[in-house]
Amino acid sequence: GRLIHLSPPALLTLGFLLLIALGSVLLKLPIASHAPTAWLDAVFTATSAVTVTGLVVVDTGTHFTLFGQVVIALLIQVGGLGFMTFAVVGAIMLGTKISFIQQRVAQEAFNQTSLDKVMQTAKAVLIYSLLIEAVGFILLTLTWQSSLGWRQASWEAFFYTISAFNNAGFALNANGLIPYVSDWGVNLIITTLFIIGGIGFTVLMDIRQKRRWHQFSTNTRLILLATLIINTVAFLLIWLLEANNPATLGNLSLSDQALAAWFQAVTPRTAGFNTLDIAAMTNASIVLILLLMFIGGGSLSTASGLKIGTFVVLMMATYAFLRQRQDVTVLKRTIPLVQVMKALSLAMTSMLLIFLGIFILDATENATFLNIVFEVVSAMSTVGLSLGLTGQLSEAGRVVVIFLMIAGRLGPLTLAYLVARPHKSRIRYADASLQIG
Amino acid sequence: GRLIHLSPPALLTLGFLLLIALGSVLLKLPIASHAPTAWLDAVFTATSAVTVTGLVVVDTGTHFTLFGQVVIALLIQVGGLGFMTFAVVGAIMLGTKISFIQQRVAQEAFNQTSLDKVMQTAKAVLIYSLLIEAVGFILLTLTWQSSLGWRQASWEAFFYTISAFNNAGFALNANGLIPYVSDWGVNLIITTLFIIGGIGFTVLMDIRQKRRWHQFSTNTRLILLATLIINTVAFLLIWLLEANNPATLGNLSLSDQALAAWFQAVTPRTAGFNTLDIAAMTNASIVLILLLMFIGGGSLSTASGLKIGTFVVLMMATYAFLRQRQDVTVLKRTIPLVQVMKALSLAMTSMLLIFLGIFILDATENATFLNIVFEVVSAMSTVGLSLGLTGQLSEAGRVVVIFLMIAGRLGPLTLAYLVARPHKSRIRYADASLQIG
Ligand SMILES: [K+]
Ligand SMILES: [K+]
Repeated sequence: GRLIHLSPPALLTLGFLLLIALGSVLLKLPIASHAPTAWLDAVFTATSAVTVTGLVVVDTGTHFTLFGQVVIALLIQVGGLGFMTFAVVGAIMLGTKISFIQQRVAQEAFNQTSLDKVMQTAKAVLIYSLLIEAVGFILLTLTWQSSLGWRQASWEAFFYTISAFNNAGFALNANGLIPYVSDWGVNLIITTLFIIGGIGFTVLMDIRQKRRWHQFSTNTRLILLATLIINTVAFLLIWLLEANNPATLGNLSLSDQALAAWFQAVTPRTAGFNTLDIAAMTNASIVLILLLMFIGGGSLSTASGLKIGTFVVLMMATYAFLRQRQDVTVLKRTIPLVQVMKALSLAMTSMLLIFLGIFILDATENATFLNIVFEVVSAMSTVGLSLGLTGQLSEAGRVVVIFLMIAGRLGPLTLAYLVARPHKSRIRYADASLQIG
Repeated sequence: GRLIHLSPPALLTLGFLLLIALGSVLLKLPIASHAPTAWLDAVFTATSAVTVTGLVVVDTGTHFTLFGQVVIALLIQVGGLGFMTFAVVGAIMLGTKISFIQQRVAQEAFNQTSLDKVMQTAKAVLIYSLLIEAVGFILLTLTWQSSLGWRQASWEAFFYTISAFNNAGFALNANGLIPYVSDWGVNLIITTLFIIGGIGFTVLMDIRQKRRWHQFSTNTRLILLATLIINTVAFLLIWLLEANNPATLGNLSLSDQALAAWFQAVTPRTAGFNTLDIAAMTNASIVLILLLMFIGGGSLSTASGLKIGTFVVLMMATYAFLRQRQDVTVLKRTIPLVQVMKALSLAMTSMLLIFLGIFILDATENATFLNIVFEVVSAMSTVGLSLGLTGQLSEAGRVVVIFLMIAGRLGPLTLAYLVARPHKSRIRYADASLQIG
């Protein structure tokens, strides 16, 4: 049929939109919520879940019934691990041959060249994800069973494991994870889940196969190093900036300060949980969080944002320029110019969308500039942190944020494929001599 | 002596710093102001004048005496037209041979290869600038003589001509040009002066020599087209966004609305005058102005910012990526990758400095995020518009803004030369395969 003629990115986008539509209908059902849910709120919630953002216009814990919450968890799981993985693995299990179209879809999603490798990858993604989630689920259940009882503990463990591993940031409590600010078990389990989920599957597979640092690929070492550096710097800065703020870290013990600073340092890329009141943090911390949200997590992960690899390439290109080096290098490897160009274009596209989002929301919303900037970056990087604007958004504003969440999760690459097919011009124009800088 | 060993950019920077030091001492003199001027305020004012920014911590018209105001005008003229031009032309006039070092300085500044061409350019810059300023001075004097009398009219015309042509944005009135919001003569003379000053001398020379559109260089046509498009879009958007705002355009006649919208659309790149109360504009307009300030004017002009050419290259690179074209093209010319890399690096360096400025001011100042972002972008692009923060800056904040104005005017290229010499590595590392996006 006509579907055959759709390009892989178009198919991916269509799948996302269908999943959001299905989720919206399910969340709109009377059994999904205690009070009626407006269509726009149902679509917003479904979009937030499928794009693993975590921005909410209604409180997940009190507005939705257990049925509604299970729907949200499943939307997160399917959206996060990717309906692509599900489709490919499902096709393998059913023993059917993968059509040419599906094959191309899979290749697009996993950036691999061989179909075998795609299937292997898809299977591995699913198996390892479920294994990691199982461990997280057991640990969280054990942690919570004494206070909540087995039944409630296992349900909340189920929800939070999915929400954390998929970097969704949905919480069952309107205060997020603030009640657990000093709970080392909950903090370490949840941050471990979302850091593993957000670092990228090729990195995880490389670690699992090679096991030794010097055998890791350049990409793996780069992502691990960059993650370590970014997390450490963010941790120290947030601790420093909030240590004397009585509304955040000020009244905690030294060890609890470290724990909360750690959580707030790692959650913006792009889990979106919070154990502190973000709006009560100092302005400098909030600006730092803005940058962290923009950077985002690893490629081929449940995290979104610009991506760590892209950010490092941009930084190294700038460094090479400032040092006046001819080659852009990192870890004794040269970054090809075409990679730098790709990173540049991704960053520019993201920034243009962020600028447009800020510009439009500034016209439609009656809110401070900071709240709007924060909301737009949070939506575009599918983080889900907010300074409180989400619930007060006008209808136009909700539509804008829905669009940003979808654009942010699909990413500029997919959007690019939607508007154009690769094009090799037959005309090669003479070089221009332009004045720059 | 030792000066011989300084690189051209270091010499340029040193010259700037010496000019600022000289200006600070002159402005600190008792005869320069009616009330004593603090050292930090003198340095701030001198820096703002030499970097043609126009941010002020004391009111130019009431705090400084005529002597002080003349000092400010001269600092603007020397800083704006460039002490480089003065030095080169001065050397020619004195008939002395230009030393090898001066030759390299001149080449660096004008991006030309032959010394003869440098001298020609330097001479042309000075002659045409003074000619244009002379015309502006006469027209403004004639405009103001009926209301102010010849003496005061000629003095104000002298000051505003220098301030406008050099894109400095200094005004003799605390309200800027707000009193002239409906004055077509003043508006058209001053916008023409700062647009000509800010478009770049090579463009002006090209227009003067070729006279016909199809003979213009690609660079000239690109800059003219981009300027036209950016100014037109900004003009229409600001008119639209402010038409119903009683604090700005709302109470003006339709023709005066057009005039004021035009003025506010062209002043952010990077003249910095205002005929409306910027702080009273809608948030959407302010966000648009932020973008315009960031873009800035033409290369080799009295304007600063990222520069129009750089912005266009970034836009075309992103467009090529989204359309999946192999070559980045504009006006049927290919933009070499090395140009794109340069544009990318300039933009990244500017954005890093802007981010750092926002981060630090957020820690040192008690101000809204918007006011801080606006102040930092305005200082870094040497625009001089403000939402009112400048006068309330802490001492630390003033130091940060002084640094931003100098960094913004010298530009990332000069800063790059200061930290490193061109470096061709003997080692060529193997290509890395990194995940991006
Ligand atoms: K999230
Ligand atoms: K200015």
